[in-house]
Amino acid sequence: DFMKSLDEVRASFGVSEAELKTCVANGIIRFNANVDRILSDGQLFVDQVRNSSRTPLVSVLLHGPSGSGKTALAATIAMASEFPFIKLISPEAMVGYSEASKMTHINKIFNDAYKSPLSVIVVDCIERILDWVPIGPRFSNSVLQTLLVLFKKPPPNDRKLLILATTTNKNVLEQMDFVDAFNTDLYVPNIVDLNSVSKVIEELQLFNQNDLNRSLTILRDGGIGDNLSVGVKKLLMISEMARQDVDKVDKFVSTLIDQGGSR
Amino acid sequence: DFMKSLDEVRASFGVSEAELKTCVANGIIRFNANVDRILSDGQLFVDQVRNSSRTPLVSVLLHGPSGSGKTALAATIAMASEFPFIKLISPEAMVGYSEASKMTHINKIFNDAYKSPLSVIVVDCIERILDWVPIGPRFSNSVLQTLLVLFKKPPPNDRKLLILATTTNKNVLEQMDFVDAFNTDLYVPNIVDLNSVSKVIEELQLFNQNDLNRSLTILRDGGIGDNLSVGVKKLLMISEMARQDVDKVDKFVSTLIDQGGSR
Amino acid sequence: DFMKSLDEVRASFGVSEAELKTCVANGIIRFNANVDRILSDGQLFVDQVRNSSRTPLVSVLLHGPSGSGKTALAATIAMASEFPFIKLISPEAMVGYSEASKMTHINKIFNDAYKSPLSVIVVDCIERILDWVPIGPRFSNSVLQTLLVLFKKPPPNDRKLLILATTTNKNVLEQMDFVDAFNTDLYVPNIVDLNSVSKVIEELQLFNQNDLNRSLTILRDGGIGDNLSVGVKKLLMISEMARQDVDKVDKFVSTLIDQGGSR
Amino acid sequence: DFMKSLDEVRASFGVSEAELKTCVANGIIRFNANVDRILSDGQLFVDQVRNSSRTPLVSVLLHGPSGSGKTALAATIAMASEFPFIKLISPEAMVGYSEASKMTHINKIFNDAYKSPLSVIVVDCIERILDWVPIGPRFSNSVLQTLLVLFKKPPPNDRKLLILATTTNKNVLEQMDFVDAFNTDLYVPNIVDLNSVSKVIEELQLFNQNDLNRSLTILRDGGIGDNLSVGVKKLLMISEMARQDVDKVDKFVSTLIDQGGSR
Amino acid sequence: DFMKSLDEVRASFGVSEAELKTCVANGIIRFNANVDRILSDGQLFVDQVRNSSRTPLVSVLLHGPSGSGKTALAATIAMASEFPFIKLISPEAMVGYSEASKMTHINKIFNDAYKSPLSVIVVDCIERILDWVPIGPRFSNSVLQTLLVLFKKPPPNDRKLLILATTTNKNVLEQMDFVDAFNTDLYVPNIVDLNSVSKVIEELQLFNQNDLNRSLTILRDGGIGDNLSVGVKKLLMISEMARQDVDKVDKFVSTLIDQGGSR
Amino acid sequence: DFMKSLDEVRASFGVSEAELKTCVANGIIRFNANVDRILSDGQLFVDQVRNSSRTPLVSVLLHGPSGSGKTALAATIAMASEFPFIKLISPEAMVGYSEASKMTHINKIFNDAYKSPLSVIVVDCIERILDWVPIGPRFSNSVLQTLLVLFKKPPPNDRKLLILATTTNKNVLEQMDFVDAFNTDLYVPNIVDLNSVSKVIEELQLFNQNDLNRSLTILRDGGIGDNLSVGVKKLLMISEMARQDVDKVDKFVSTLIDQGGSR
Ligand SMILES: Nc1ncnc2c1ncn2[C@@H]1O[C@H](COP(=O)(O)OP(=O)(O)OP(=O)(O)O)[C@@H](O)[C@H]1O
Ligand SMILES: Nc1ncnc2c1ncn2[C@@H]1O[C@H](COP(=O)(O)OP(=O)(O)OP(=O)(O)O)[C@@H](O)[C@H]1O
Ligand SMILES: Nc1ncnc2c1ncn2[C@@H]1O[C@H](COP(=O)(O)OP(=O)(O)OP(=O)(O)O)[C@@H](O)[C@H]1O
Ligand SMILES: Nc1ncnc2c1ncn2[C@@H]1O[C@H](COP(=O)(O)OP(=O)(O)OP(=O)(O)O)[C@@H](O)[C@H]1O
Ligand SMILES: Nc1ncnc2c1ncn2[C@@H]1O[C@H](COP(=O)(O)OP(=O)(O)OP(=O)(O)O)[C@@H](O)[C@H]1O
Ligand SMILES: Nc1ncnc2c1ncn2[C@@H]1O[C@H](COP(=O)(O)OP(=O)(O)OP(=O)(O)O)[C@@H](O)[C@H]1O
Ligand SMILES: [Mg+2]
Ligand SMILES: [Mg+2]
Ligand SMILES: [Mg+2]
Ligand SMILES: [Mg+2]
Ligand SMILES: [Mg+2]
Ligand SMILES: [Mg+2]
Repeated sequence: DFMKSLDEVRASFGVSEAELKTCVANGIIRFNANVDRILSDGQLFVDQVRNSSRTPLVSVLLHGPSGSGKTALAATIAMASEFPFIKLISPEAMVGYSEASKMTHINKIFNDAYKSPLSVIVVDCIERILDWVPIGPRFSNSVLQTLLVLFKKPPPNDRKLLILATTTNKNVLEQMDFVDAFNTDLYVPNIVDLNSVSKVIEELQLFNQNDLNRSLTILRDGGIGDNLSVGVKKLLMISEMARQDVDKVDKFVSTLIDQGGSR
Repeated sequence: DFMKSLDEVRASFGVSEAELKTCVANGIIRFNANVDRILSDGQLFVDQVRNSSRTPLVSVLLHGPSGSGKTALAATIAMASEFPFIKLISPEAMVGYSEASKMTHINKIFNDAYKSPLSVIVVDCIERILDWVPIGPRFSNSVLQTLLVLFKKPPPNDRKLLILATTTNKNVLEQMDFVDAFNTDLYVPNIVDLNSVSKVIEELQLFNQNDLNRSLTILRDGGIGDNLSVGVKKLLMISEMARQDVDKVDKFVSTLIDQGGSR
Repeated sequence: DFMKSLDEVRASFGVSEAELKTCVANGIIRFNANVDRILSDGQLFVDQVRNSSRTPLVSVLLHGPSGSGKTALAATIAMASEFPFIKLISPEAMVGYSEASKMTHINKIFNDAYKSPLSVIVVDCIERILDWVPIGPRFSNSVLQTLLVLFKKPPPNDRKLLILATTTNKNVLEQMDFVDAFNTDLYVPNIVDLNSVSKVIEELQLFNQNDLNRSLTILRDGGIGDNLSVGVKKLLMISEMARQDVDKVDKFVSTLIDQGGSR
Repeated sequence: DFMKSLDEVRASFGVSEAELKTCVANGIIRFNANVDRILSDGQLFVDQVRNSSRTPLVSVLLHGPSGSGKTALAATIAMASEFPFIKLISPEAMVGYSEASKMTHINKIFNDAYKSPLSVIVVDCIERILDWVPIGPRFSNSVLQTLLVLFKKPPPNDRKLLILATTTNKNVLEQMDFVDAFNTDLYVPNIVDLNSVSKVIEELQLFNQNDLNRSLTILRDGGIGDNLSVGVKKLLMISEMARQDVDKVDKFVSTLIDQGGSR
Repeated sequence: DFMKSLDEVRASFGVSEAELKTCVANGIIRFNANVDRILSDGQLFVDQVRNSSRTPLVSVLLHGPSGSGKTALAATIAMASEFPFIKLISPEAMVGYSEASKMTHINKIFNDAYKSPLSVIVVDCIERILDWVPIGPRFSNSVLQTLLVLFKKPPPNDRKLLILATTTNKNVLEQMDFVDAFNTDLYVPNIVDLNSVSKVIEELQLFNQNDLNRSLTILRDGGIGDNLSVGVKKLLMISEMARQDVDKVDKFVSTLIDQGGSR
Repeated sequence: DFMKSLDEVRASFGVSEAELKTCVANGIIRFNANVDRILSDGQLFVDQVRNSSRTPLVSVLLHGPSGSGKTALAATIAMASEFPFIKLISPEAMVGYSEASKMTHINKIFNDAYKSPLSVIVVDCIERILDWVPIGPRFSNSVLQTLLVLFKKPPPNDRKLLILATTTNKNVLEQMDFVDAFNTDLYVPNIVDLNSVSKVIEELQLFNQNDLNRSLTILRDGGIGDNLSVGVKKLLMISEMARQDVDKVDKFVSTLIDQGGSR
């Protein structure tokens, strides 16, 4: 498996493109202005890292409810930077790791980044990387401390680093004094208006025009629009469930009311 | 034991049929409409995994009181899928395992699943897999974190996976932020009406028609029907205990009142 | 020590008779109707396991106050079954074991049982096997989880198993969700009437008729009968202490009032 | 060191006389009736173990305030039995032991006892053997569980065992369900009257008759007699401190008032 | 890599200049009188260590809010001492270390210092070195105890040592009885007046005179001056962010109001 | 390093003079009557150990506020005994030790002491030896238990031992039932009167007579005398800080008011 080990070498330096693309499996649908604002703010941080010599390290926290699109947006900003080193630190890559192995894995990626003049590291789902669970509560303090230090440690001479991290649990990070370690943050909201729902559904080609109108009418008449709050990820799942059903409109509308009405 | 080791190889890939059949040792008695609804909803998720390219991973939580039939139903849905890879992750198979061994065992089954184009994994009795005990409370956080990540990790390119998990402790899973990791859930209720009891008893051939009527009359007259709540598994046990007694009707009725009247 | 290792082999399969007989060192005195009821209920469970194909596993919890005779009764029911495999899992046999060794020891006995068509396992004093202590509280969760799974795991094809467990701490087991793992339970009460005391004393030949009458009169006149509550095991100890004294009647009566009057 | 290792062999079987004598370094002063009562009760338990075939195991807890003489009395009862096996289990012999080593050490002494037809084991200062500390609280549960089982485990066929244990913390043992493991207990009180103080001082030859009278008068006049409570061990220490001083009477009286007046 | 290992040798003895310079990457801007006072107090402690034979060990705690300049000031005082041994103990150098490795690393630096007649050790960000997290709370007690002892242990004969430590969490150190281990402390405040802001901005050449005046006017008119509180480190970050924007004045002013107005 | 290893041998037996002298680096200033009383009480315990055959073990706790001179006084009493074995157990000598190593180190020193006819062991700063921290609270229970047993274990035949221990946290030791393990205690107070301050300053030759008078006047006029409470160790530190300043009187007076006025 010469080719495979070659890929691993390539993957461990430079850009882990495949992984990052998986994070945006269903693309970025520009369903409202928030999406554009987040992407352009992300671009600004990329520029600061590239240009300012006084701040060679910039760290940003993307936070918001479960399934609101944080990972996909962070991956998109990272790939758009076109920096020579773009890496993902994710819980999926560390399944079954001991605390020590996690620390080594994370540390290695940062040390690799320090060798490139310009780097982005995406740290996805911090609470999962920390083995966080509210009962106890419990988490890996040694992994937490590793991140706390690495997020503030300036890269060596002339090297520059942008850190993009995601979480659904900003208030837990606050209790850990972790939010202080970030230079700034970006809020990624849920979808809360029927216009955005409509844009997403159109893009997915779930309905014909007639069915689309019918479902929007039902939702609007049911007053769902007033307390709608659903992540784009869940909206995608609901659409695909509905697609299997004989009565797609009914399945879509009823499931959205069940699961997306708890603003 | 060449044959035995061959079986083990076979069992570790593909379908673990023997184990799954054991879960349905006393068959599925269609004693009311709930049973049919759960089975057909299960079929819908099987279809979504088979058909939708946008949602290659679907995870479902079957929850309900102790002995309500969760494991038998999950096993039945899984076997009905006829997917090339159908596997059971159960506490029975991990008796005496260390946390690390559990993580390895679970991880291996998921990795095997990722090699098949279409897979179902039944994860039975999550709270027991997590070594959950309310005193403390205590549980294995490393096994929990492994499951939390694996339940959200998309299978690689073109592979598809359905996860069916069971629990009697949904509210504990909620406290662990575990319920968020599921795309949807199915409730498996206890038997709460005498009609269903009657159907089950007939199927088990515990009584002749006369005795059946007599016991239903006693139960109805005693008002048991109003606060009956008994799992199909316990109803089976009570029937078999009664079968040993000289006065079967009396034993059956008195035990059911003792143990099944605490709705 | 060929003979000794042979004995160990014999002991680890089949029936551990010596150990079980030690549990009934002072015989079973049939001092009141409870004793008979418990023994005949036990016989019924033995029959169910032997006869029903639908319930190859039946588990029973004998619970009651300290010294009420739980272990002796469980051992008696087990020996009366005359099943080919009858085994005792007791804290005495695991003194000084690590958690892992306990798990292995317990697991081995269950696996041995699965090789016999008909088996009884007596699990004595569950709270001690679990290293339970109320301060903390603390206990071995890994041993608990092992028991929780083994008590619900059906034996393989055509094998049948009866589990008889004892505890003085049913409410602790309830807090551990352990009571749910049993199919049924049997209460073993203390001695609470002077008739039973009299029957036991007669059997032990502690007094001549005159002394017996005298002590019962003193106890009755002192009103002890109204709040008497003493385990048969403690009653035996009090009798033997009294036997050493010059004034046996006085020693017996005063000690019984001191130690057996706290119903 | 052949002789030394021989001594160790001898010491590990049979009687550990030297150690037990150290426990009674200053003899037993019969300063009041309690002392005699405790010694004769002790004799009764020795007899029961020797004579009764129904109770081959008897366990006794000596409890009372710090320095009241528990260890000296337990050692004296044990030596007076003249059983062929008399052993001391004490925290001093296990300084620096790991939990596992403690368990092995304790277990070995019990197993050695089981080889002798008649044995006494003195278990001194249980709370210290358990590494008890009220902050937390903390203690070694594995050592506790070892003792809990060994204190109830009947010796094998025809062997008999008396266990004499001491503690200053009976209420802690109660919280551990440990007191239930004893068949009976003996209370060893502090000295609370000036008569006993006088008897002890005379025995120690601290004062001439004149000084003795003078100090008793001062104490009596100061009303100390009404709330005196001092262990015989502390009284010995105070006497020896006073012995160094130029004004022995003053030093003795003032120290006794300082340290022994907190009944 | 002979040269590299030579550097490491040099670095591990004597002065770790590179690391200390990194701590003052953006220089020391003398924006108000506090800055001068802290530096001259620091000089006084340097003198005391150099001159007094009675106090060969002096330890100072620099504390203040996040980003107020503690590390830069401690490093500056240390470098100004021109002692032959000047070392930094920082969390960055111990990323991923086990507790034992941390203890060894810290201990080694102190032992090296004891070999030099005059030494300064900067211990940066104590709470991070201790793996402190408020949830639990948790920290490494073994590292804490190592520091507690080393901070009070006098250097050997004729050796002298100045310890400069920094923290943002003085009240946590107080709860640990750590503050008692220091001989004295120095408070490093945030910037709370617009004059200091103006001096910093001028130094950074962010604006032309016109823009500077405009932003100060906006801030003053908005009343920000009354509850301003911003660390010099954050002020630097805000300036560099603003520098990327098309409307620098607006970006600077709005970000400062967002993030620096929470006095 | 033959000489060095020889020194180590010498140091590990007999008297560890160098270490003990370091504890009294600035001598004992007899600034008031307390100092004399503590030293003469110490002498009395030395005599008791030498003379009484009934109390071969005497243990004394020196307690008082931080810096009041406990260690220096304990070391002075120990050295004055001129016993053949005088040893210091201190946290400084165990920096970075594991719990097990600490236990071994402590145990060894006691065992060495048992080989000498007359021994003193100084156990300095018990709370630090125990790794005590109030957050949690946490401490090493195994080291605590080792000390608890060794502090009560009588030395073997004809050997005698004096234990002098110091602490600033007597109330913590009380919560650990540790104070019971001592035969007696000595309180070492802070300096609370200006006379003692004056005596110390004179001894240190900080001021000329004029400056001394001036500073005492300022302090007296400021009413500091009424709530002064400062350890001799801190007073030494304040004096040496003042010595560096141009205006010694002002620095001394202001620092003493700042740091010594919190009685
Ligand atoms: N505008 C959008 N923003 C983000 N994701 C989008 C958008 N449009 C479509 N998507 C798709 O929606 C999905 C968003 O899922 P993603 O994993 O990023 O959510 P998340 O907030 O990280 O979820 P979780 O809270 O579970 O981590 C992706 O599949 C992505 O391709
Ligand atoms: N309609 C039915 N649904 C489920 N099980 C049924 C049904 N009819 C009969 N059974 C039988 O009832 C038993 C149900 O037991 P099962 O182990 O599935 O319950 P469970 O809810 O998983 O119990 P537990 O809470 O103990 O895990 C099985 O033996 C199954 O064969
Ligand atoms: N009717 C009886 N039932 C039970 N035991 C009896 C009876 N008659 C006599 N015995 C004797 O009484 C003793 C009962 O002790 P056993 O150990 O069974 O009590 P236990 O409830 O298990 O005690 P523990 O709570 O300490 O575990 C045995 O020695 C047994 O031989
Ligand atoms: N009547 C007596 N009873 C007990 N001990 C006595 C008596 N007369 C003299 N002594 C002496 O008093 C001392 C009692 O100390 P002992 O160690 O037995 O007390 P203790 O209660 O075990 O103390 P601790 O609570 O510290 O364990 C021994 O030295 C013993 O020789
Ligand atoms: N007067 C000043 N005092 C301190 N730092 C200054 C000053 N002027 C400019 N700086 C620069 O400001 C930055 C201060 O950052 P520094 O890391 O010292 O802050 P800190 O308080 O240690 O932060 P943290 O709380 O994150 O540890 C440094 O880059 C330093 O060069
Ligand atoms: N009368 C005195 N008593 C004690 N120490 C004195 C006295 N006079 C001068 N000293 C000096 O004062 C210092 C006292 O410090 P020491 O370490 O003994 O205090 P401590 O109470 O043990 O402090 P800590 O609470 O930090 O352990 C020593 O340097 C000692 O030489
Ligand atoms: Mg995400
Ligand atoms: Mg189940
Ligand atoms: Mg029992
Ligand atoms: Mg004792
Ligand atoms: Mg800093
Ligand atoms: Mg000290």
